[in-house]
Amino acid sequence: MHKLEIAVGRDVFEKNKEEAKRNAHVLKDHNITAFDILGSIGSGKTSIIEKAVPILAEKGLKIGAIAGDVFGEDDYTRMKVLEIPVINLNTGTECHLDAHLVHHALTTLPLEELDILFIENVGNMVCPTDFELGTDARIVVVSVTEGDDVVNKHPMIFRVSDIGVINKIDLAGAVGASIQRMENDMNRIAPHIRKIKMSVKTGEGLTDFIEEILKYHR
Amino acid sequence: MHKLEIAVGRDVFEKNKEEAKRNAHVLKDHNITAFDILGSIGSGKTSIIEKAVPILAEKGLKIGAIAGDVFGEDDYTRMKVLEIPVINLNTGTECHLDAHLVHHALTTLPLEELDILFIENVGNMVCPTDFELGTDARIVVVSVTEGDDVVNKHPMIFRVSDIGVINKIDLAGAVGASIQRMENDMNRIAPHIRKIKMSVKTGEGLTDFIEEILKYHR
Repeated sequence: MHKLEIAVGRDVFEKNKEEAKRNAHVLKDHNITAFDILGSIGSGKTSIIEKAVPILAEKGLKIGAIAGDVFGEDDYTRMKVLEIPVINLNTGTECHLDAHLVHHALTTLPLEELDILFIENVGNMVCPTDFELGTDARIVVVSVTEGDDVVNKHPMIFRVSDIGVINKIDLAGAVGASIQRMENDMNRIAPHIRKIKMSVKTGEGLTDFIEEILKYHR
Repeated sequence: MHKLEIAVGRDVFEKNKEEAKRNAHVLKDHNITAFDILGSIGSGKTSIIEKAVPILAEKGLKIGAIAGDVFGEDDYTRMKVLEIPVINLNTGTECHLDAHLVHHALTTLPLEELDILFIENVGNMVCPTDFELGTDARIVVVSVTEGDDVVNKHPMIFRVSDIGVINKIDLAGAVGASIQRMENDMNRIAPHIRKIKMSVKTGEGLTDFIEEILKYHR
């Protein structure tokens, strides 16, 4: 059973890589810096976008977004309020976005008007790992409410990511989570990752986050 | 690409269903009531097991557990402390347990000594849905910290579950989540599901949970 899955999987991954490259070319042609935002349901992916967009807009940057979810328009609706171009991508039963779906979204977005594109992936710590979308960087967001063992349990998603956000640090005491353990696990599993401790609620870490984003935007 | 995945998927699902039936027979032969516990990372699956085991043990019931995770022994280690038989199942890259993996665990557990088996699935709101394990019931655990749109975003997992736990209700105010919205979404999406509002921390809802568990144990 598993062998069969892997054999097919390889073709799927190859196809996805090609489409990711195509997306990267399209984005580069339009001088758009794109971010694939990964993380579990409720880790704060949408909230971070909600906070970052006005700050980046104030710096004169034009932002677009893609809201990926298995079902529904919850995140899409929240992003529309930001008055930026947003595409809703429902995967139906798939637990991740893929480059082909993103390609479709890119054909609909007003690319010539954008500087930065946030792609919020489906809330999932496993599936999106293998499916590059053609972005400049991948950001994985975990929150202390997921338990301080969340990093150790999902090494792959940190290895493929460039920025690791530890969110909801204001709740660490309330849920008995050790931020230090999460940082240590990240250091061990993905020494290359740039770590940001954040609370979207209190605003802590938001400046660091914006700085990291701007490093990628030429 | 997607067509190919679905074609293979059907075979995988059929094979899994057969193995799930075999597991169900093995469990029934030993008069074991088994629960497949689903939900996102950090929703509280392990914590609920930690709280439920001593209460059930006090009622004279013998409990066993299977700890499913992509990687690591974090949950396994927590369950070992309960001094019950526990098997650790690491899926490697798969985002769900399957009946075949559980079959292997069943051949290792001391089945003749058990009354109740808790199988903690991989923390994921999508993948485990299609893979029945052969249990008597499925319990989906969501926490208010995942956002009150978590139910609406993942209808399938609620449709296939028998019990729906809304956990961490003590944090609803702190994270600005509406428990009412979560309940309403469950009622709409899965009217059959038995809802339990819980806080593992304060103990609220634990008695209701134990009662539901005991309804399944003959």
